[in-house]
Amino acid sequence: MQQQISVITLGVADLARSRRFYVEGFGWKPVFENPEIVFYQMNGLVLGTWLETALAGDMQRSKLARPGAFALAHNVASRDDVKRVIEVLSRHGGRILREGDAPEHGGFRGYVADPDDHAWEIAWNPAWAIDSNGLVKFGL
Amino acid sequence: MQQQISVITLGVADLARSRRFYVEGFGWKPVFENPEIVFYQMNGLVLGTWLETALAGDMQRSKLARPGAFALAHNVASRDDVKRVIEVLSRHGGRILREGDAPEHGGFRGYVADPDDHAWEIAWNPAWAIDSNGLVKFGL
Repeated sequence: MQQQISVITLGVADLARSRRFYVEGFGWKPVFENPEIVFYQMNGLVLGTWLETALAGDMQRSKLARPGAFALAHNVASRDDVKRVIEVLSRHGGRILREGDAPEHGGFRGYVADPDDHAWEIAWNPAWAIDSNGLVKFGL
Repeated sequence: MQQQISVITLGVADLARSRRFYVEGFGWKPVFENPEIVFYQMNGLVLGTWLETALAGDMQRSKLARPGAFALAHNVASRDDVKRVIEVLSRHGGRILREGDAPEHGGFRGYVADPDDHAWEIAWNPAWAIDSNGLVKFGL
Protein backbone atom coordinates (compact mmCIF):
# COMPACT_ATOMS: atom_id res chain seq x y z
CA MET A 1 0.00 0.00 0.00
CA GLN A 2 1.07 3.56 -0.67
CA GLN A 3 3.03 4.99 2.29
CA GLN A 4 0.59 7.80 2.68
CA ILE A 5 -1.27 9.60 5.45
CA SER A 6 -4.12 11.68 4.06
CA VAL A 7 -5.44 13.45 7.12
CA ILE A 8 -4.61 14.12 10.73
CA THR A 9 -7.78 14.95 12.62
CA LEU A 10 -7.51 16.47 16.07
CA GLY A 11 -10.50 16.46 18.39
CA VAL A 12 -11.20 19.93 19.77
CA ALA A 13 -13.60 21.20 22.43
CA ASP A 14 -13.87 24.79 21.21
CA LEU A 15 -13.34 25.48 17.54
CA ALA A 16 -12.68 29.22 17.87
CA ARG A 17 -10.09 28.67 20.57
CA SER A 18 -8.35 26.03 18.46
CA ARG A 19 -8.54 28.18 15.34
CA ARG A 20 -6.75 31.04 17.09
CA PHE A 21 -3.81 28.76 17.93
CA TYR A 22 -3.45 27.47 14.37
CA VAL A 23 -4.34 30.62 12.43
CA GLU A 24 -2.79 33.29 14.62
CA GLY A 25 -0.13 31.20 16.34
CA PHE A 26 1.20 29.08 13.47
CA GLY A 27 -0.10 31.59 10.91
CA TRP A 28 -1.79 28.86 8.86
CA LYS A 29 -4.67 29.57 6.51
CA PRO A 30 -7.76 27.32 6.52
CA VAL A 31 -8.77 25.78 3.21
CA PHE A 32 -12.30 25.11 4.49
CA GLU A 33 -14.28 25.78 7.63
CA ASN A 34 -17.78 25.37 8.96
CA PRO A 35 -19.22 25.43 12.51
CA GLU A 36 -17.81 21.99 13.35
CA ILE A 37 -14.54 21.57 11.48
CA VAL A 38 -11.59 23.53 10.14
CA PHE A 39 -9.32 22.02 7.47
CA TYR A 40 -5.79 23.19 6.66
CA GLN A 41 -3.98 22.09 3.50
CA MET A 42 -0.55 20.93 4.65
CA ASN A 43 2.48 19.41 2.91
CA GLY A 44 0.80 16.64 0.96
CA LEU A 45 -1.81 15.92 3.61
CA VAL A 46 -4.65 17.70 5.35
CA LEU A 47 -4.94 18.74 9.00
CA GLY A 48 -8.46 18.79 10.40
CA THR A 49 -9.63 20.17 13.72
CA TRP A 50 -13.05 18.72 14.42
CA LEU A 51 -15.40 18.99 17.34
CA GLU A 52 -14.48 16.07 19.51
CA THR A 53 -18.02 14.81 19.94
CA ALA A 54 -18.41 14.61 16.17
CA LEU A 55 -15.05 12.84 15.78
CA ALA A 56 -15.94 10.36 18.51
CA GLY A 57 -19.28 9.67 16.86
CA ASP A 58 -17.65 9.13 13.49
CA MET A 59 -15.10 6.72 14.97
CA GLN A 60 -17.82 5.01 17.01
CA ARG A 61 -15.70 5.17 20.11
CA SER A 62 -16.30 7.06 23.32
CA LYS A 63 -14.24 8.53 26.11
CA LEU A 64 -11.48 10.05 24.03
CA ALA A 65 -8.68 10.88 26.45
CA ARG A 66 -6.05 13.57 26.86
CA PRO A 67 -3.18 13.93 26.65
CA GLY A 68 -3.04 11.37 23.87
CA ALA A 69 0.04 9.17 23.42
CA PHE A 70 1.26 11.02 20.35
CA ALA A 71 3.00 14.14 19.16
CA LEU A 72 3.04 16.10 15.93
CA ALA A 73 6.18 17.93 14.85
CA HIS A 74 6.66 21.12 12.91
CA ASN A 75 10.28 21.47 11.84
CA VAL A 76 11.84 24.87 11.32
CA ALA A 77 14.93 26.14 9.55
CA SER A 78 17.10 27.16 12.48
CA ARG A 79 17.73 26.80 16.17
CA ASP A 80 16.56 30.37 16.77
CA ASP A 81 13.28 29.64 15.01
CA VAL A 82 12.51 26.93 17.58
CA LYS A 83 12.48 29.44 20.43
CA ARG A 84 10.67 32.05 18.36
CA VAL A 85 7.86 29.70 17.30
CA ILE A 86 7.41 28.33 20.81
CA GLU A 87 7.13 31.88 22.12
CA VAL A 88 4.57 32.89 19.47
CA LEU A 89 2.46 29.76 20.07
CA SER A 90 2.52 30.37 23.82
CA ARG A 91 0.97 33.79 23.19
CA HIS A 92 -1.89 32.25 21.18
CA GLY A 93 -3.28 29.65 23.52
CA GLY A 94 -0.38 27.19 23.55
CA ARG A 95 1.10 25.81 26.76
CA ILE A 96 4.83 25.17 26.85
CA LEU A 97 5.65 21.59 27.84
CA ARG A 98 9.39 21.82 27.26
CA GLU A 99 11.45 24.89 26.43
CA GLY A 100 13.82 24.45 23.51
CA ASP A 101 16.96 22.46 24.24
CA ALA A 102 19.28 20.05 22.43
CA PRO A 103 18.47 16.32 22.39
CA GLU A 104 21.27 13.75 22.35
CA HIS A 105 20.78 12.91 18.69
CA GLY A 106 21.45 16.52 17.67
CA GLY A 107 19.41 19.51 16.56
CA PHE A 108 17.21 21.49 18.91
CA ARG A 109 13.58 21.10 20.02
CA GLY A 110 10.85 21.99 22.44
CA TYR A 111 7.18 21.07 22.91
CA VAL A 112 3.98 23.10 23.09
CA ALA A 113 0.50 21.74 23.83
CA ASP A 114 -2.32 23.23 21.76
CA PRO A 115 -5.47 24.45 23.59
CA ASP A 116 -6.85 20.89 23.48
CA ASP A 117 -3.66 19.42 24.95
CA HIS A 118 -2.39 17.95 21.68
CA ALA A 119 1.42 18.05 21.71
CA TRP A 120 3.45 19.82 19.04
CA GLU A 121 7.20 19.40 18.89
CA ILE A 122 8.90 22.42 17.36
CA ALA A 123 12.21 21.19 16.05
CA TRP A 124 15.31 22.18 14.15
CA ASN A 125 16.78 19.03 12.62
CA PRO A 126 19.51 19.86 10.11
CA ALA A 127 19.69 16.21 8.95
CA TRP A 128 16.14 16.22 7.61
CA ALA A 129 15.62 18.11 4.36
CA ILE A 130 12.49 20.25 3.91
CA ASP A 131 11.84 21.50 0.41
CA SER A 132 10.07 24.69 -0.61
CA ASN A 133 6.74 22.84 -0.69
CA GLY A 134 7.25 21.68 2.89
CA LEU A 135 7.96 18.08 1.95
CA VAL A 136 10.08 16.46 4.63
CA LYS A 137 12.60 13.70 4.06
CA PHE A 138 14.06 11.45 6.72
CA GLY A 139 17.83 11.77 7.07
CA LEU A 140 20.58 10.67 9.43
CA MET B 1 5.02 29.86 8.86
CA GLN B 2 5.17 27.04 6.34
CA GLN B 3 2.00 24.88 6.49
CA GLN B 4 3.99 21.80 7.24
CA ILE B 5 3.88 18.82 9.57
CA SER B 6 7.23 17.04 9.68
CA VAL B 7 6.51 14.05 11.88
CA ILE B 8 3.65 12.17 13.48
CA THR B 9 4.94 10.22 16.46
CA LEU B 10 2.75 7.54 17.99
CA GLY B 11 3.52 6.21 21.45
CA VAL B 12 3.67 2.42 21.48
CA ALA B 13 3.95 -0.12 24.28
CA ASP B 14 5.47 -2.96 22.27
CA LEU B 15 7.54 -2.08 19.22
CA ALA B 16 7.39 -5.52 17.59
CA ARG B 17 3.62 -5.67 17.92
CA SER B 18 3.26 -2.20 16.42
CA ARG B 19 5.75 -2.98 13.65
CA ARG B 20 3.69 -5.98 12.57
CA PHE B 21 0.61 -3.80 12.10
CA TYR B 22 2.44 -1.21 10.00
CA VAL B 23 4.83 -3.47 8.07
CA GLU B 24 2.65 -6.51 7.51
CA GLY B 25 -0.76 -4.87 7.75
CA PHE B 26 -0.24 -1.64 5.81
CA GLY B 27 2.75 -3.12 3.97
CA TRP B 28 4.93 -0.11 4.76
CA LYS B 29 8.71 -0.27 4.78
CA PRO B 30 10.69 1.30 7.64
CA VAL B 31 13.35 3.83 6.68
CA PHE B 32 15.08 3.43 10.06
CA GLU B 33 14.66 1.31 13.14
CA ASN B 34 16.37 0.65 16.44
CA PRO B 35 15.18 -0.97 19.69
CA GLU B 36 13.08 2.03 20.67
CA ILE B 37 11.76 3.62 17.49
CA VAL B 38 10.68 2.78 13.95
CA PHE B 39 10.46 5.53 11.32
CA TYR B 40 8.50 5.29 8.06
CA GLN B 41 9.01 7.78 5.22
CA MET B 42 5.55 8.90 4.21
CA ASN B 43 4.15 11.42 1.70
CA GLY B 44 6.25 14.44 2.57
CA LEU B 45 6.39 13.69 6.27
CA VAL B 46 7.68 10.97 8.57
CA LEU B 47 5.70 8.58 10.77
CA GLY B 48 7.47 7.47 13.93
CA THR B 49 6.41 4.76 16.36
CA TRP B 50 8.31 5.32 19.57
CA LEU B 51 8.25 3.58 22.93
CA GLU B 52 5.72 5.56 24.87
CA THR B 53 7.93 5.99 27.94
CA ALA B 54 10.61 7.58 25.76
CA LEU B 55 8.09 9.84 24.02
CA ALA B 56 6.62 10.92 27.36
CA GLY B 57 10.10 11.68 28.69
CA ASP B 58 10.96 13.72 25.61
CA MET B 59 7.74 15.71 25.87
CA GLN B 60 8.21 16.08 29.64
CA ARG B 61 4.67 15.05 30.27
CA SER B 62 3.32 12.01 32.05
CA LYS B 63 0.18 9.90 32.01
CA LEU B 64 -0.32 9.73 28.28
CA ALA B 65 -3.84 8.47 27.75
CA ARG B 66 -5.70 6.22 25.32
CA PRO B 67 -7.66 6.42 23.17
CA GLY B 68 -6.38 9.86 22.24
CA ALA B 69 -8.72 12.48 20.81
CA PHE B 70 -7.39 12.17 17.27
CA ALA B 71 -7.47 10.04 14.16
CA LEU B 72 -5.13 9.50 11.24
CA ALA B 73 -6.52 8.73 7.82
CA HIS B 74 -5.17 6.63 4.99
CA ASN B 75 -7.13 7.27 1.82
CA VAL B 76 -7.48 4.61 -0.84
CA ALA B 77 -8.47 4.60 -4.49
CA SER B 78 -11.83 2.85 -4.35
CA ARG B 79 -14.73 1.85 -2.17
CA ASP B 80 -13.71 -1.80 -2.37
CA ASP B 81 -10.22 -0.94 -1.15
CA VAL B 82 -11.69 0.41 2.09
CA LYS B 83 -13.13 -2.96 3.02
CA ARG B 84 -10.07 -4.81 1.81
CA VAL B 85 -7.61 -2.70 3.82
CA ILE B 86 -9.74 -2.86 6.96
CA GLU B 87 -9.83 -6.62 6.65
CA VAL B 88 -6.06 -6.92 6.15
CA LEU B 89 -5.32 -4.62 9.10
CA SER B 90 -7.67 -6.60 11.31
CA ARG B 91 -5.62 -9.71 10.58
CA HIS B 92 -2.40 -7.96 11.68
CA GLY B 93 -3.24 -6.69 15.12
CA GLY B 94 -5.81 -4.04 14.23
CA ARG B 95 -9.18 -3.79 15.92
CA ILE B 96 -12.15 -2.69 13.84
CA LEU B 97 -13.93 0.31 15.35
CA ARG B 98 -16.33 0.87 12.47
CA GLU B 99 -16.89 -1.29 9.42
CA GLY B 100 -16.86 0.58 6.14
CA ASP B 101 -19.97 2.60 5.35
CA ALA B 102 -20.93 5.82 3.59
CA PRO B 103 -20.85 9.10 5.51
CA GLU B 104 -23.31 11.89 4.68
CA HIS B 105 -20.70 13.98 2.90
CA GLY B 106 -20.02 11.20 0.40
CA GLY B 107 -17.35 8.60 -0.17
CA PHE B 108 -16.89 5.55 2.04
CA ARG B 109 -14.93 4.94 5.26
CA GLY B 110 -14.29 2.79 8.28
CA TYR B 111 -11.98 2.91 11.30
CA VAL B 112 -9.39 0.52 12.70
CA ALA B 113 -7.45 0.95 15.94
CA ASP B 114 -3.79 -0.02 15.82
CA PRO B 115 -2.42 -2.32 18.57
CA ASP B 116 -1.83 0.76 20.76
CA ASP B 117 -5.39 2.01 20.25
CA HIS B 118 -4.48 4.79 17.83
CA ALA B 119 -7.34 5.27 15.37
CA TRP B 120 -6.90 4.97 11.60
CA GLU B 121 -9.65 5.98 9.26
CA ILE B 122 -9.51 4.07 6.00
CA ALA B 123 -11.34 6.20 3.47
CA TRP B 124 -12.29 6.49 -0.15
CA ASN B 125 -12.89 10.15 -0.90
CA PRO B 126 -13.20 10.77 -4.63
CA ALA B 127 -13.14 14.57 -4.12
CA TRP B 128 -9.60 14.56 -2.72
CA ALA B 129 -6.84 14.00 -5.27
CA ILE B 130 -3.89 11.77 -4.38
CA ASP B 131 -0.96 11.90 -6.78
CA SER B 132 1.50 9.11 -7.54
CA ASN B 133 3.77 10.34 -4.73
CA GLY B 134 0.92 10.09 -2.26
CA LEU B 135 0.45 13.84 -1.94
CA VAL B 136 -3.10 14.59 -0.90
CA LYS B 137 -5.05 17.69 -1.84
CA PHE B 138 -8.19 18.94 -0.14
CA GLY B 139 -11.21 19.06 -2.47
CA LEU B 140 -14.95 19.60 -2.25
